[in-house]
Order: sequence, then C-alpha cells, then structure tokens
Amino acid sequence: MVVGYQRYLELIADLTAGKELIASGMTHEVQRCRTALRRAAEGAAVALISSGDAGIYGMAGLAIELRRAEGLDVPIEIIPGVTAASAAAAALGAPLMLDFAVISLSDLLIDWETIRRRLEAVAAADLVIALYNPRSTRRVRQLEEAVAIFRAARPGHTPAGVVTDAGQAGQSLRVTDLEHLLQEEIGMRSIVIIGNSTTALLDGWMVTRRGYPV
Amino acid sequence: MVVGYQRYLELIADLTAGKELIASGMTHEVQRCRTALRRAAEGAAVALISSGDAGIYGMAGLAIELRRAEGLDVPIEIIPGVTAASAAAAALGAPLMLDFAVISLSDLLIDWETIRRRLEAVAAADLVIALYNPRSTRRVRQLEEAVAIFRAARPGHTPAGVVTDAGQAGQSLRVTDLEHLLQEEIGMRSIVIIGNSTTALLDGWMVTRRGYPV
Repeated sequence: MVVGYQRYLELIADLTAGKELIASGMTHEVQRCRTALRRAAEGAAVALISSGDAGIYGMAGLAIELRRAEGLDVPIEIIPGVTAASAAAAALGAPLMLDFAVISLSDLLIDWETIRRRLEAVAAADLVIALYNPRSTRRVRQLEEAVAIFRAARPGHTPAGVVTDAGQAGQSLRVTDLEHLLQEEIGMRSIVIIGNSTTALLDGWMVTRRGYPV
Repeated sequence: MVVGYQRYLELIADLTAGKELIASGMTHEVQRCRTALRRAAEGAAVALISSGDAGIYGMAGLAIELRRAEGLDVPIEIIPGVTAASAAAAALGAPLMLDFAVISLSDLLIDWETIRRRLEAVAAADLVIALYNPRSTRRVRQLEEAVAIFRAARPGHTPAGVVTDAGQAGQSLRVTDLEHLLQEEIGMRSIVIIGNSTTALLDGWMVTRRGYPV
C-alpha cells in the first residue's frame, strides 16, 4: 500500500495502479506517518511517499522517530531521491557545483532567530545557498529578511535563480540577480538559489565555476 | 554515445550495451568534457556521465563553461541525480532532515583558507554538515582540521556517520560520534556527516529531529 500527501500521490498515479492508497492533507504528516507504521506493523508492505528526497525536509526522520515513540518493531528502508535543490539547480544550470548550504525559511518548527543566524553565517562564508519554503501567502517577511542578509554580504549583481515546481510538469524558472530577486514570483513550491563570488551567468545559465583551467 | 570516467561507465554497463563508449581516467575531466562537446557539435547525441548529481561536484558546470570557451553552439540538458550526501544520509537514517551544508575538503581547485572559513561558519551556526572528499591517501590533514573545528563548537558525543560507496554495491557505513570519528576508515569515496544539536541516535539510526510533536 502507498501512503502520502494527496498531491504527491496524484503525481505518481502511473506507478500505483491497483494498489491501496491512503491520501491525506498537507498538515497531517504525523497522522499519515503513524498510519503507515501501524499498517506495516500489521504486516503490510507500505511505501510512505515524500516529494524530492524523503531525507531532506521529508518524512524519513519522522518515520524513525514515530517508530520508536510507538514502540513498533518494523523494518524501515529509506530510499533517497533527487532533492528539490538538485532539480532546481539542473534547471538553472550548475549553481551548486561547489560548497553550498540548504536552509528552509519556514519557522513553523524552528525559531526564526536560529534560521537568521544560519543565513548570516552562510552569507558571510561565501557559500551558495538554496532556500526551501521561501515564501507563502501568509509568510513573506522571512524571504525579505533573508535577501537583506545576503544583500549586506554580496553585491547586487550576484546571480540568483527561482525555480517553481522543479523537475515537475509545469516547472517554471527565472534567472535574475540578488538586487532584483524579490520582484520575482516566489511561492511555497519555489526554490531560490543565490550564488556566491564565483557564480556567473554564462549563455543564460547560472554556473558556479569550479576553477578548472578552461 | 556515452562519455565518462572509466569506473562510472563500468557501474552502468547494463545501460550502455551497444553504444559507443569513451572512457578516461580520473584526472582528465577537461579533456573528457571537451570530447563530449565536440562530438555533440558534430551531431552526435552524447551522454556525459557523472556519479551522483552532475550538478554537485560533477561535470555540469564544466560542460557549460567549456561550451562557451570553445564557442560550440550545442544544446545541453542537465539531468539531476541523487547526490552522495542524500545516498549517505538514507543509509545512516535521516541526518539531513533540516538545514545543512555541503563542503568538499579537497583543496585542489580551491584554497584551504576559504574551506576552513566555511567550516568554521557552518560549525558555529549549528548546521549539519556533509563532507565530500574527506580524505585521500596523500591528503589527511584537512579532515583532522575539519573535525577539530567542529569539536571546538560541538560536544564530543554529537552523532557522526561515515558512508563509503554510498548507494553502490559494496556500500559500508559506520555510525559514531564526533569524538571517535577520526578512528574510522575514511577515504576518497567516503561521505562524512556530522550532526548538530538536535541530531540523535535512535535505534541505531542517525536522525536530526524536525521538531514535530511525536
């Protein structure tokens, strides 16, 4: 059987024909995961679906935590996937060629002070950054603050990119720069990538140069 | 036709039967990439192979740079993949559930001072870290220095993991802690992941807790 967020199950409908499906809403991660574990404990072979990589802002950690909290002795295998930062980078060119950081701007489960401190450290260390959950309808201030932090450490012409629905049908992308980044349409399903001092725009692609003698 | 490092072509032999193969040694990235581009410019459909994700320490950026340097007007499509950090994380549990950084300890193409500064920033910001190219036969000091930097910022019992040949046949892994990390066998094909203040060992898995009420 296959357990997942409704939208993700729709995306893999071609793979699940004939299988039992349990879909749930966006904010029901714990309930969804508990259902998967309990059914597995009863003997079912259960696939718990995340988009991208289940181990990066996905369901893998929660599954291990809940398995323990519920005292369920079920085997778990975690299948890695292509995380949204990789899919977005491939669409934009090759901005993650070298050292980078991945930070989510959602402060639902982590306090903003911690996130802000991480952004400042990454900005100062000239790391390329991939931002997950950059903005939602109700949460807009965090992205503004993140861009201000990078703007204080990097020139306005630093390449930046936005990819929405990375790697999926309907993917859209924009290559811009740090100064104009906030003018782009950025939402919950977008990934924002901000380059560093060696990131360049080459023939429309965003590339962080690795330093090969070319 | 398929162009790649000899070892990677061997790993995908089941996919390349009947196709023209051009294999080259480990240090011939530029030559390999130039061959791929020139053959594409002559009209061939060419696959240039990287292990993991071509956009993360792979060949994607070099291909875009060389295409421009050589003035070759060939279309390039970058196919994202499962990067070694994702594969290693899945083997260890879910250490990359939240914000993290990816840093290579190879100072062949980037100076050590820059790398050291990044390690210090990431260690201070309580980010989980995935280290690529942690150690080779001739390059051992960098990992020792990296571990010392994290040891200065985090307690010795902070969970750490080593995965060698992540996601491949012959994969091996060890879950340990920051204090004992340097006692492990770590080589060129290993990924080292060091947890942060919320990373725990749960039933043998290394998990960075996302903060769900479990």
